[in-house]
Amino acid sequence: MNFTIRPATKADSNDMWRMIKELAIHEKKLDKVTLSYEEFEMDGFGQKPSFESFVAKVPEENKSKEGFTTVGVALYFYTYNSWKGRAVYLDVLYVMTEFRGFGIGKGLLSRVAKVAREKSCQIMELNVLGHNSQSRGFYAAHGAQDITVREGWHTQRFEEESLNKLAHNAP
Amino acid sequence: MNFTIRPATKADSNDMWRMIKELAIHEKKLDKVTLSYEEFEMDGFGQKPSFESFVAKVPEENKSKEGFTTVGVALYFYTYNSWKGRAVYLDVLYVMTEFRGFGIGKGLLSRVAKVAREKSCQIMELNVLGHNSQSRGFYAAHGAQDITVREGWHTQRFEEESLNKLAHNAP
Repeated sequence: MNFTIRPATKADSNDMWRMIKELAIHEKKLDKVTLSYEEFEMDGFGQKPSFESFVAKVPEENKSKEGFTTVGVALYFYTYNSWKGRAVYLDVLYVMTEFRGFGIGKGLLSRVAKVAREKSCQIMELNVLGHNSQSRGFYAAHGAQDITVREGWHTQRFEEESLNKLAHNAP
Repeated sequence: MNFTIRPATKADSNDMWRMIKELAIHEKKLDKVTLSYEEFEMDGFGQKPSFESFVAKVPEENKSKEGFTTVGVALYFYTYNSWKGRAVYLDVLYVMTEFRGFGIGKGLLSRVAKVAREKSCQIMELNVLGHNSQSRGFYAAHGAQDITVREGWHTQRFEEESLNKLAHNAP
């Protein structure tokens, strides 16, 4: 199947948000989505964007059964690692189920990798659920190391309540 | 012990780099540090900084046995989470061994939490080694959830060779 990949614009934000929610449903974590569409659109395409993104498009004749031609999304931003230097974090990589197996996911991943190298980033990281063996296999096949398994890193998260409590007591 | 915490400047970069290397030695991972001091200084205090940071200082009369008065560092940057919104990632939180137990680590953590809330960030994340029960206890005591344990997230990392290969084949 033919597809094209290009940087997303504000006009893509509806399609992107639809796919982000599809991904959350797929991972049985829709209840973890506390962001609103309006916030998402502002965060991505307002005056000071918090992320960059690519979308994958198919021709009209290959549209999905619901009529969508935007069928994949990658959302990423720049991070830092005090031991390695500049880095990219890939927060979302998603291809609609009926469009898998055509290389769209690999295409999106490769475009983000290309940006990473152009910006002199040394590493690209992302997180997957441990039980998602399909995704883990996909990333491993393209050269990713599972550093949770290899080095034993554990992610700690502070959410609103604990952040507020800490902030309130800041010296 | 009295201490003060303030945003770091370029003049602090030598002290910061010294403590980043101490932390790597402490975690027995000095061989993972591939960044140079010159790159670090440029990344933090050049024209387009990749991170923000705080340092903790003690009075001259409390200097370390080697004569240092800059005894703690926090290094962080802004990230994004497509389910939660804007976020902060804390890449380094370190206090020199002989200055632990005085609340300096909590002070640094609280200042970053305060920045996070001022910038409307919903979450703050960091990574610790699974076997570092002291650090895990410290973060848990201040309200962090271990999402590697709780939700089963695994971090995947692409390094230079796999990034180059992907980038080379980008559509």
